[in-house]
Amino acid sequence: MAITIYDVAREANVSMATVSRVVNGNQNVKPVTRKKVLDCIERLGYRPNAVARGLASKKTTTIGVIVPDISKSFYAELSRGIADIATMYEYNIILSNSDERTAREVELIEDHLGKQVDGLIFMSDSISEEVRAEMATATVPIVLAGTLDEQNKLASVNIDYEQAAFDAVNKLIGNGHNEIIFLSGSFRSDINRLCKKQGYIRALQGAGITVNENLIIEIDDTYDSAYEAWKQIKNLAENPTGILTANDVLAVGVLNGIRDDGLSVPTDYEIICFEHSFLARIVRPQLTSVAVPLYDLGAVAMRLLTKLMNGEEVDEEQVILPFRFEERNSLK
Amino acid sequence: MAITIYDVAREANVSMATVSRVVNGNQNVKPVTRKKVLDCIERLGYRPNAVARGLASKKTTTIGVIVPDISKSFYAELSRGIADIATMYEYNIILSNSDERTAREVELIEDHLGKQVDGLIFMSDSISEEVRAEMATATVPIVLAGTLDEQNKLASVNIDYEQAAFDAVNKLIGNGHNEIIFLSGSFRSDINRLCKKQGYIRALQGAGITVNENLIIEIDDTYDSAYEAWKQIKNLAENPTGILTANDVLAVGVLNGIRDDGLSVPTDYEIICFEHSFLARIVRPQLTSVAVPLYDLGAVAMRLLTKLMNGEEVDEEQVILPFRFEERNSLK
Repeated sequence: MAITIYDVAREANVSMATVSRVVNGNQNVKPVTRKKVLDCIERLGYRPNAVARGLASKKTTTIGVIVPDISKSFYAELSRGIADIATMYEYNIILSNSDERTAREVELIEDHLGKQVDGLIFMSDSISEEVRAEMATATVPIVLAGTLDEQNKLASVNIDYEQAAFDAVNKLIGNGHNEIIFLSGSFRSDINRLCKKQGYIRALQGAGITVNENLIIEIDDTYDSAYEAWKQIKNLAENPTGILTANDVLAVGVLNGIRDDGLSVPTDYEIICFEHSFLARIVRPQLTSVAVPLYDLGAVAMRLLTKLMNGEEVDEEQVILPFRFEERNSLK
Repeated sequence: MAITIYDVAREANVSMATVSRVVNGNQNVKPVTRKKVLDCIERLGYRPNAVARGLASKKTTTIGVIVPDISKSFYAELSRGIADIATMYEYNIILSNSDERTAREVELIEDHLGKQVDGLIFMSDSISEEVRAEMATATVPIVLAGTLDEQNKLASVNIDYEQAAFDAVNKLIGNGHNEIIFLSGSFRSDINRLCKKQGYIRALQGAGITVNENLIIEIDDTYDSAYEAWKQIKNLAENPTGILTANDVLAVGVLNGIRDDGLSVPTDYEIICFEHSFLARIVRPQLTSVAVPLYDLGAVAMRLLTKLMNGEEVDEEQVILPFRFEERNSLK
């Protein structure tokens, strides 16, 4: 006969709720109690059946993760952070790619909710009205990871991108640059438009430098576009010498453009970027960057989701994680 | 009152099975019938409830994907290929990371099967006996993607890694190298040990070159290990000048080691590698590589899985996709 949660509770002399909390990784259990329950689980050979447990508690122990494109390292890293915490709390993940198409995003949210997931983690360039309306129909919690809610209503986990851009541009200004490029992916991205660009502008204004729209360059968020953008940058009458890029990939594109033209970083141009993924370490010179804690953004978003799913008290639903600078060799 | 599948069947004057086939994307429905059913679905506003549909047909329309680490670009690319075909066939994906730990792999297979997935795609360095035993209990199809079954029994999608290594080493031999390094991640990986290494050996033997174990270097499958391995390579008495690496990341590590020592590729050393990911294009010189069609390996594996899940006739369960060489600048 199969061992049930009743058997474990009786054997450990605790409530079924306590066994459930231990099984679900809830931290709200005394260590000595947890130890006792785990010992009984092992001794009896109890193995919770996911589907049975799901039906009994009207929970599927599955969460949905909607990501623009899992093959992009930014989202792959975030997803790994989400997955590790989900495993710890015994949730499975249904993962879907949206390609940031609004119609697809709406369809996926609807589909995930129809699958009766217990919660949803959503990533995108921005939250469209259609997506917001679809989310409003949800009866389970939703958390944004590395994704901004312009209206600041949805639960989310981010860093202070605006402050990071401000600090990064001040490093360039401190190194003597007055003509500074901001090279960014699409400004449809709220983080690019509302945070990174605004931090760039605030730093220039703080230093008494006039903001010049020619130096704010919006391109496709790809290596090849950044490589091409170099041709535009080198022909600018302003002769910019400092460059902030919205991520590593764009920095590597412009860096290779500069170097393939026989010029040098940091001698001729200085570059600072966001992300500090693996790419920033393998190029020469290595890139000085705002280190965005991608794994942590995912992990903390998932932890926040578990709290919301369990109905726990949450102090702050808009979580801001710290960032740091990784000082390498693309600045003097 | 909610519109049910009964209402649609009555309105369209077809059987419920036919409505079900249309909803599930089964191709075995006449176009005119499909049109009629879809019209009724739209007119009545019928929205199939995924979970109910799952219970009724004993299918969850969900498949499991077990991947070593989604944050590695190799698996992120494969997963995107899987996901796109899954979407086309209206399957959701439950994605889990195994970190290639056998105990975890067994647990995940068990867990996915317990969730009653309709099929499973599995990726790993090798198929352990424990994993094979667990797979044998499955009542749903399983397909390996970019993963070898040493016993050649499980359904799988791969390229001919042995032939690719053979061809790559022959390019180095053709360029005049007699002392050729094979730099590889762990030989616990079947593909490294049974394919790439054997192709390397076959090419040397074919050219009458004695195989020298000193030149076969097994390291951790990381950039940093490859960077360190350069120090070992440059001190070898054999003075090797040609290098085959098992993937892009290792090639970039050894390339940076060479360049940071003031030496040059391809003048002093020639390098050829497997994969041709994004990395191979952004380093200087760009890397000549065996282009492994990662996205296709995933997409074809998922397509094969749909056929097996539908009980369709399948000619060959061990699919070998073609590879090609991407000629860049790390060979003369």
